[in-house]
Amino acid sequence: MNGAESLVHSLLKSGIDTCFANPGTSEMHFVAALDRIPGIRCVLGLQENVVTGMADGYFRIARKPAATLLHCGPGLANGMANLHNARRARSGIVNVVGDQATYHRPHDAPLTADTDGMARTVSHWVRTTARSADVGRDAVQAVQAARSMPGQIATLILPSDASWDDGGAVADPLAVPAPAAVDANAVETAARALRGAGPVLLLLAGQGVLAPAQALAWRIARATGASLMADYLSAHLARGKGRLQLARVPYNTDLAREVLAPFKTIILVNAKPPVGFFAYPGKPSTQYAEDADLVTLSRPDQDATAALQALVDALGAPPADLPDPGPRPEAPSGKVTSEGLARAVAALMPEQSIVSDESVSYGRDFYPHTHAAPPHDWLHLAGGAIGDGLPVATGAAIGAGGQRRVISLQADGSAMYSLQSLWTQAREKLPCTTIILSNRKYQILLGEYANVGANPGRTALDMLDLGNPDINWVQLANGMGVEAAVAQDLETLCDLMRASFAQPGPFLIELAI
Amino acid sequence: MNGAESLVHSLLKSGIDTCFANPGTSEMHFVAALDRIPGIRCVLGLQENVVTGMADGYFRIARKPAATLLHCGPGLANGMANLHNARRARSGIVNVVGDQATYHRPHDAPLTADTDGMARTVSHWVRTTARSADVGRDAVQAVQAARSMPGQIATLILPSDASWDDGGAVADPLAVPAPAAVDANAVETAARALRGAGPVLLLLAGQGVLAPAQALAWRIARATGASLMADYLSAHLARGKGRLQLARVPYNTDLAREVLAPFKTIILVNAKPPVGFFAYPGKPSTQYAEDADLVTLSRPDQDATAALQALVDALGAPPADLPDPGPRPEAPSGKVTSEGLARAVAALMPEQSIVSDESVSYGRDFYPHTHAAPPHDWLHLAGGAIGDGLPVATGAAIGAGGQRRVISLQADGSAMYSLQSLWTQAREKLPCTTIILSNRKYQILLGEYANVGANPGRTALDMLDLGNPDINWVQLANGMGVEAAVAQDLETLCDLMRASFAQPGPFLIELAI
Repeated sequence: MNGAESLVHSLLKSGIDTCFANPGTSEMHFVAALDRIPGIRCVLGLQENVVTGMADGYFRIARKPAATLLHCGPGLANGMANLHNARRARSGIVNVVGDQATYHRPHDAPLTADTDGMARTVSHWVRTTARSADVGRDAVQAVQAARSMPGQIATLILPSDASWDDGGAVADPLAVPAPAAVDANAVETAARALRGAGPVLLLLAGQGVLAPAQALAWRIARATGASLMADYLSAHLARGKGRLQLARVPYNTDLAREVLAPFKTIILVNAKPPVGFFAYPGKPSTQYAEDADLVTLSRPDQDATAALQALVDALGAPPADLPDPGPRPEAPSGKVTSEGLARAVAALMPEQSIVSDESVSYGRDFYPHTHAAPPHDWLHLAGGAIGDGLPVATGAAIGAGGQRRVISLQADGSAMYSLQSLWTQAREKLPCTTIILSNRKYQILLGEYANVGANPGRTALDMLDLGNPDINWVQLANGMGVEAAVAQDLETLCDLMRASFAQPGPFLIELAI
Repeated sequence: MNGAESLVHSLLKSGIDTCFANPGTSEMHFVAALDRIPGIRCVLGLQENVVTGMADGYFRIARKPAATLLHCGPGLANGMANLHNARRARSGIVNVVGDQATYHRPHDAPLTADTDGMARTVSHWVRTTARSADVGRDAVQAVQAARSMPGQIATLILPSDASWDDGGAVADPLAVPAPAAVDANAVETAARALRGAGPVLLLLAGQGVLAPAQALAWRIARATGASLMADYLSAHLARGKGRLQLARVPYNTDLAREVLAPFKTIILVNAKPPVGFFAYPGKPSTQYAEDADLVTLSRPDQDATAALQALVDALGAPPADLPDPGPRPEAPSGKVTSEGLARAVAALMPEQSIVSDESVSYGRDFYPHTHAAPPHDWLHLAGGAIGDGLPVATGAAIGAGGQRRVISLQADGSAMYSLQSLWTQAREKLPCTTIILSNRKYQILLGEYANVGANPGRTALDMLDLGNPDINWVQLANGMGVEAAVAQDLETLCDLMRASFAQPGPFLIELAI
């Protein structure tokens, strides 16, 4: 058995059954092993940022890591921005990066690069395996690292001779480490704050915004009068009927400070202290009141549900029904607005849909209008590196076994970063409905530019405006095998959504906003 | 004057007049400064690998660095593969990477990343400027590094407060360091080898394959009987009438070893010892005869032309006319072949055209059929990270001031890596003719897979085949504002090329191969 074969067997035994891939010459023995040994579904992405973004979306829905197959340092580099996003989303991923043979590396052939150095910038765990005998062992350690709470990026660099040499040995799966224990002192401190005077906020993130934690957080809120809010950076929220009507901390730093100002105590449930996405001249970095107490109930490596359960117990908070979001919205009509789009999504989405939201500036108010939708999952860009919406949607559809509708609410400028995702959606016949929010500009940057205090001249506009030429998304989608149409009003949008939801494969709607 | 303004003024004084950009919030003050201070042409790319690849192509033709504007670590990461290629091409580039404000960084906001660590993997020179007062000074040092022979990647990381704070100071340009002196001992050693017995090869790379060095190398070859060959990895060759009919060392390692086997001495002119692109089981890494002497006449940081002139002088090699490549080919007809495509390019290209060749496997034999074309420049992928062909073509067109036709011979799989380049070609109305070599597979990998000794099954084919769905390049080009058409035979190809060469803007031909 060669190293590559031991890798495939070891990954399989550790529960890896999906590999997002863009291979090259140095991975041919791995490709051959994947071909010979059945059990791992291989999904091709036409650029590596699609590959890594798919693995992120897969993890968020399947709640287990996939492998990626990347080609040398530059192939890894192409996928690094979405590994950055996955790291911020706390998704577990096992990257397998093929590389130059150990004895070839000193010759500095063209594709030789600082693969290890690149990997370290976005990974929790990095190893270069020099011998075929060690490949299986290192693979299961990589899987163990990726599965460690709350999900980590593990990167295994595999010189081609470690793949092709004989002597591979299959390794048994390693136990997934339990999350760090709930801290009884933290529970007691939080309970004391909740029993005391002054407005208290439970700020939820990670596991804390999924359904089981929401129900517990609501019991605490009912029993104590505390407020609940989701971190702006929540990668994955459970939403819709039967879930909590959470608001996120606003993106805009002035608004965020206004919303957070009343709270004298903020209890962090897998959340970090809220800070601005960026600094601005003369404004503070932090978004909470200067005299606020920050109490960490649970860190991201702890079990938010268990921590909230302990807090419920400490407070003796009785069971409480989640609030009713009211009737599901009707399908809207008329002029396209952000609210109208949100209501259309809420009105028409199939139950258990997945929304991949990279709407950037246009989608800041989608939440209030989608609380009364059927139960669904809502995925956000967690790391701020634009271009993860379409890959995450594609991987999420695969993570759901093709059984759930995925709806992308996708800004046009960000979509152009990883548009190759559409091709994979077509090839894999995924139930993905992409709604391109076509305003033909980097709207968020025009807003930021205004903050600098200037009207943009020609030079600035040339860097912020996506018109000239206008991008035709119907042609782009068709060119990659995805059917598509334009909607200029909400009736057409709703008609196209209904038609898309009724068919199994992907569809793209270019929505003029 | 704020730091950003001092940056623009200092870059301008150092001769930087072009900035390839994809900005974000942390670069808004730089964008505003570029807007207020005239003189730098800003060119938007819709993904950063397009941005950095354009800067590479610009350098190869303009022979001076451009700036890039990138957004935080992930924006740099997106452009790293083409920075890797630019590093291998020995192109000079000044990257300006906006980043979190110095005091905001400890808060670990979402886009915070190991920007410095990322930059070091692909840069010769990296600095993070912490104070506005230092921005001008660091900028001119970055330009100096980028201009150092033979061209370097300089990355200046600019926290947003260093941009917006007052106290910026314009810095005067720094002298470009002279190339390392020609080594008289190396010249003598080379001359001795050339006077001795046994076949000698002059292996040319870098400056050594541009026109002045070619003329000198030919004099040496005529006087001594030495053979001449270009490194496989030549980023930029002067070709066509009035230039040498150089062959490159073959890509295939068996062929390369066969071609290089006869030579007992190989004189390296800005070239590295020839090694395989990859290692293969049981095959040596190096491509030259085991008993061959390698003589370094000039390193990449030395002046190849000066070194060859010294060698001409040492040998007393008389002036010699370059060999005549014979008549220019006629426009071909019939079935599409690699030779036919090459002959079409040779027959129809305008004088001083630039060919951006990322043809990968299809283009291995283009050279013999294009020697008799008019004088032109031929650009290759030097770092092996696919996806530089279209960005390099776009940047080369800008580097030539829009005055020269750029012809991309572009494999389809590689084109999908950075197809957003087409949009920039349309926006800037560049004279770029893209010929997509559409075979709908990663042909090179199918060949490599065969070397592994297996017939690909379904799983392997799913990672190597680009059909299902077929990519429609006419629709993709149209979607980004570029006119396009399909050619199924050489007559149609020639008609479309003629039509494209007669109009000022970009055009794309999907050539079914």
